[in-house]
Amino acid sequence: MSKKILLSHGGGGEEMQSLISKLFFKHFGNEILDKMEDSAALHVKNNIAFTTDSFTVTPIFFNGGDIGKIAVAGTVNDLLSAGAKPLYISCGFIIEEGFLYEDLERIVISMKNELQKSGAKIVTGDTKVVPRGKADGIFINTSGIGETVCENISSHNLNEGDALIITNETGNHGACILANREELKVGGDLKSDCASLFEPILTLFERGIKPKAIRDATRGGLSAVLNEWALASNVGIEVNESDIPISNEVMGLCEIFGFEPYELANEGTMIICVKQEDTQKTLKILREFEECKKANIIGRVLNSHNKHVILKSPWGTSRFLELPKGELLPRIC
Amino acid sequence: MSKKILLSHGGGGEEMQSLISKLFFKHFGNEILDKMEDSAALHVKNNIAFTTDSFTVTPIFFNGGDIGKIAVAGTVNDLLSAGAKPLYISCGFIIEEGFLYEDLERIVISMKNELQKSGAKIVTGDTKVVPRGKADGIFINTSGIGETVCENISSHNLNEGDALIITNETGNHGACILANREELKVGGDLKSDCASLFEPILTLFERGIKPKAIRDATRGGLSAVLNEWALASNVGIEVNESDIPISNEVMGLCEIFGFEPYELANEGTMIICVKQEDTQKTLKILREFEECKKANIIGRVLNSHNKHVILKSPWGTSRFLELPKGELLPRIC
Repeated sequence: MSKKILLSHGGGGEEMQSLISKLFFKHFGNEILDKMEDSAALHVKNNIAFTTDSFTVTPIFFNGGDIGKIAVAGTVNDLLSAGAKPLYISCGFIIEEGFLYEDLERIVISMKNELQKSGAKIVTGDTKVVPRGKADGIFINTSGIGETVCENISSHNLNEGDALIITNETGNHGACILANREELKVGGDLKSDCASLFEPILTLFERGIKPKAIRDATRGGLSAVLNEWALASNVGIEVNESDIPISNEVMGLCEIFGFEPYELANEGTMIICVKQEDTQKTLKILREFEECKKANIIGRVLNSHNKHVILKSPWGTSRFLELPKGELLPRIC
Repeated sequence: MSKKILLSHGGGGEEMQSLISKLFFKHFGNEILDKMEDSAALHVKNNIAFTTDSFTVTPIFFNGGDIGKIAVAGTVNDLLSAGAKPLYISCGFIIEEGFLYEDLERIVISMKNELQKSGAKIVTGDTKVVPRGKADGIFINTSGIGETVCENISSHNLNEGDALIITNETGNHGACILANREELKVGGDLKSDCASLFEPILTLFERGIKPKAIRDATRGGLSAVLNEWALASNVGIEVNESDIPISNEVMGLCEIFGFEPYELANEGTMIICVKQEDTQKTLKILREFEECKKANIIGRVLNSHNKHVILKSPWGTSRFLELPKGELLPRIC
């Protein structure tokens, strides 16, 4: 019989101590966590960025990742998007009684592996177990602290003439979750883009690119990011449909289910706004990295079309790309 | 009909933006949050403490507090226990579809009120909504960053002769949750001790007390803290039963349900270890504050009884107080 997580594993007593030392410390162990204090004592030289995300994705394991990988990559990417080098991460588990220990260990190992890509460390954590039926398997919160290495990245910074770059195909994560959930046998290898973009983004900073805005296009996808930026910066945005990389599999799924591909979530694809003169250098750097091979310039910032996003088709027509509405796909991350 | 939380409130689109601006920003608003970036940009001069906790308490509203108050007080107290002044808090909500909007607003207002006691600010957040039946109402994660104002507080610091002080009666929160859950009509006013101990603990630091260890005695109660300290510091601990403040109501409930009162959770009661010579000054300062009126010296650190906690009865007998085992009370915090 498989070992299962029991209520006592979240009770604050002997069983919880055992779970912490035999599973979490074993895989996450580092000189800070090993001190076993309730809070981590840290020193950060520069300004810091601080972010949080809770993850409730279903299925827990999907093609290209799992809830553990996404929990680390999501918070690492949020920090990178703020111009910060990810350093310290907290990890709060809410686990349903009866959850398989081996699944928890698989998730923890996946987190450990994803942490290695950025060198960020889990330095503090918490485990709660709720009775059967009171949660759905496992939920994970990760909060992160990063050291700011590139200042003044903000969604309020867009100006006319700035270029918009996407780092990869869009919609892969959302489409993958949808396909996994519906147990669709989609041709090709539809796979989540879930990944920490530590290397490509840090390399941009190191080689002197100062992006004006960066955002990982998760819930609400490309549409949500562009609309939030247009609103925050009080500008118009124009993107060219034919320049937005989308796989045939994602297009196919969207046609079947009636989804807008630009609203599908990503978990390792970012939108970057740079000054016009930095466009080619940014693109060249990004494409050096496997996860950004398909990076492309998708559009530009305008003074017209105030606060709206315009999508131009290859046939010369154009339409508004609006902030997504309604249910979209729940529990995508 | 009451307004309810819908899946779309967590979808990353228009409805989520509306919830964020009309509810969260309305109550939590501050100059950092108002920038509406994914990560908060912060500056902390000194060393920092970083902590996280997820809250799944049921019932959500109880005598003396609610899940919002406990989520703020718990993280504030964890930072104080590390010698840090709480500054910045993140807030991740996981909400079940159909949760009442008015209950969410009541929780948010409760968080706002509790934040005022320490001046800590919510600077970044996240909202996920899961379908009906996939969570139990609402879960909240708070992670916190504090500025270290008193260095070297650690569970590894205990030495022979050090004194152990409790800041209040023990077991009130656990007993209150139990009574609320069982709908017991217990005599008197059994009320959770849930509170941020910002003022009393900061005052200790400001008046020159340098505690060796501090811990808020949450899950596992007094027993868990003392056992973890004995183990971490490789010492024995002796506490006197008659010196541990416990209300008659808590004693009564423990007798009915067969609970050990020292294992019941607190949410605003700490254990403080100080050098022998600081004992009276510490006690005097603590008792200046309403929430610590019943502070008392409960025992001392020994070189004998290696790693064990000894409870001495008023009749001269003694027994081991052990690290709690088994289920205790689930979802106490």
